[in-house]
Amino acid sequence: MKIAYLGPEASFTHHAVQKAFENGQLIPFTTIPDCIEALTTGEVDRTVVPLENALEGSVPITVDYLFHEVDVHITAELVSPIEQHLMVHPHNGNDWENLTKIMSHSHALAQCHKYLYYRFRGISLEQSTSTSAAARYVSEHPEENVAAIGNSMAAGKYGLKMVEENIHDFHFNHTRFAVLSRDKATDILLLEETSHKSTLMITLPSDDRPGALHQVLSAFSWRQLSLSKIESRPLKTGLGNYFFIIDVEQSMDGVLMKGAVDELEALGCTVKLLGSYHKYTVPTN
Amino acid sequence: MKIAYLGPEASFTHHAVQKAFENGQLIPFTTIPDCIEALTTGEVDRTVVPLENALEGSVPITVDYLFHEVDVHITAELVSPIEQHLMVHPHNGNDWENLTKIMSHSHALAQCHKYLYYRFRGISLEQSTSTSAAARYVSEHPEENVAAIGNSMAAGKYGLKMVEENIHDFHFNHTRFAVLSRDKATDILLLEETSHKSTLMITLPSDDRPGALHQVLSAFSWRQLSLSKIESRPLKTGLGNYFFIIDVEQSMDGVLMKGAVDELEALGCTVKLLGSYHKYTVPTN
Repeated sequence: MKIAYLGPEASFTHHAVQKAFENGQLIPFTTIPDCIEALTTGEVDRTVVPLENALEGSVPITVDYLFHEVDVHITAELVSPIEQHLMVHPHNGNDWENLTKIMSHSHALAQCHKYLYYRFRGISLEQSTSTSAAARYVSEHPEENVAAIGNSMAAGKYGLKMVEENIHDFHFNHTRFAVLSRDKATDILLLEETSHKSTLMITLPSDDRPGALHQVLSAFSWRQLSLSKIESRPLKTGLGNYFFIIDVEQSMDGVLMKGAVDELEALGCTVKLLGSYHKYTVPTN
Repeated sequence: MKIAYLGPEASFTHHAVQKAFENGQLIPFTTIPDCIEALTTGEVDRTVVPLENALEGSVPITVDYLFHEVDVHITAELVSPIEQHLMVHPHNGNDWENLTKIMSHSHALAQCHKYLYYRFRGISLEQSTSTSAAARYVSEHPEENVAAIGNSMAAGKYGLKMVEENIHDFHFNHTRFAVLSRDKATDILLLEETSHKSTLMITLPSDDRPGALHQVLSAFSWRQLSLSKIESRPLKTGLGNYFFIIDVEQSMDGVLMKGAVDELEALGCTVKLLGSYHKYTVPTN
């Protein structure tokens, strides 16, 4: 099975994919749209992209692309802890207190903001296109006393020495990755399974009457269908027009879910099922 | 009155602020947190930052900073049309069909994606830190046949020639800017006023019972208080924990709004009033 993922190699997405698919042929792509288009053109069988981070929130480009541009399906969700480490070239492994520069992706620098402030105040911070690109730069410049922030997979790939581990400020930091397929399917993976979920994308009736969203939530609430997430994103038809993404802690099989969706459609809502799938936990190592 | 805005000069925020405050001393800052911190330290009396774009959605750093980091208030909302133009150095004004490069902020390039694809396919696109920085680069490099994409204010400031106007793909593109103050206040501006709004930030009870959000919306719905926006953002306490930002098309004065907020608090919600304010339309020129 060919699997596209958001690269470069040794990215957090690569780590999650490698744990989830043991025998897949993994192919990195540079951007999230490139990953998803590789799926729609048939170049790959699955695509794995980040969907939401516990600190930064949803990844807008993923959510918007799935709503506006393509018709693909979520077949599984991978929840992966995000651990950031400080790494240097092994030549500088004993002199890393006198760093001249620390490099990483802007999100990783933000996730280690307090650590960097209290430990390395005044040291120049430089943004790279990915945590993995920062690690590669460090590996190629042993003459500079520069460090990268990234995951242990990047340290291993580029032969760097991890000099301080788990330097991220919040220790409940996780990212959700979506496994996407052209067909409706439910992937069964060799990981710890935690629950079953369904993700719906709902557009309210165009007459936009007050309370329409309340009515949508009522359809789930009185049936005791528990929502773990609701989010709004622009319809791109004007300021104030949104669609809603709802995660329900339930498979689509039951009579209650079917009843809720049928009634929402009868009320004039457009409901798109993005997937009904298992949620899996990705181990750190 | 000193007013901080998201710079540099000739940014879209600068344009909106200039139209809204005719006699203010306008001071540009580089980042959104810098703009807001200038307010909390007393360096300025008002701060204007982007809150939401019709295509890109909310500006997460603004929303998160207002919830997690500071206690400031929205005193007015400015809604400004976003018009993008193609501009070149006047030396190249007759030869701009043979451009070698087009520069702009990544959002502006994205907003003109179709135009660029059909009109300039194959021409190198380069990201700059702002639309205004792209215009400055073009003004400083007359020897390069390079164009910038930005607003008419940037063309005027850097003496560029606008060779194609309104090249953005979606013509309903607007951005909402928030005027912020340390104190609760309602700013009355010399612009067209369209409506009165209140913005609330709501955290659900920590026992996280299913249907809690539905209950919140019920408090507004049965009182016929119309919501123009609801959005979720991470609480940063773990994946799946959110707070909600709700815009109600109503001032906080009425007995119904007070009743709704009092009852939400009695039900265990935390409700923070971000502001009760007028919404103003910013003219293009």
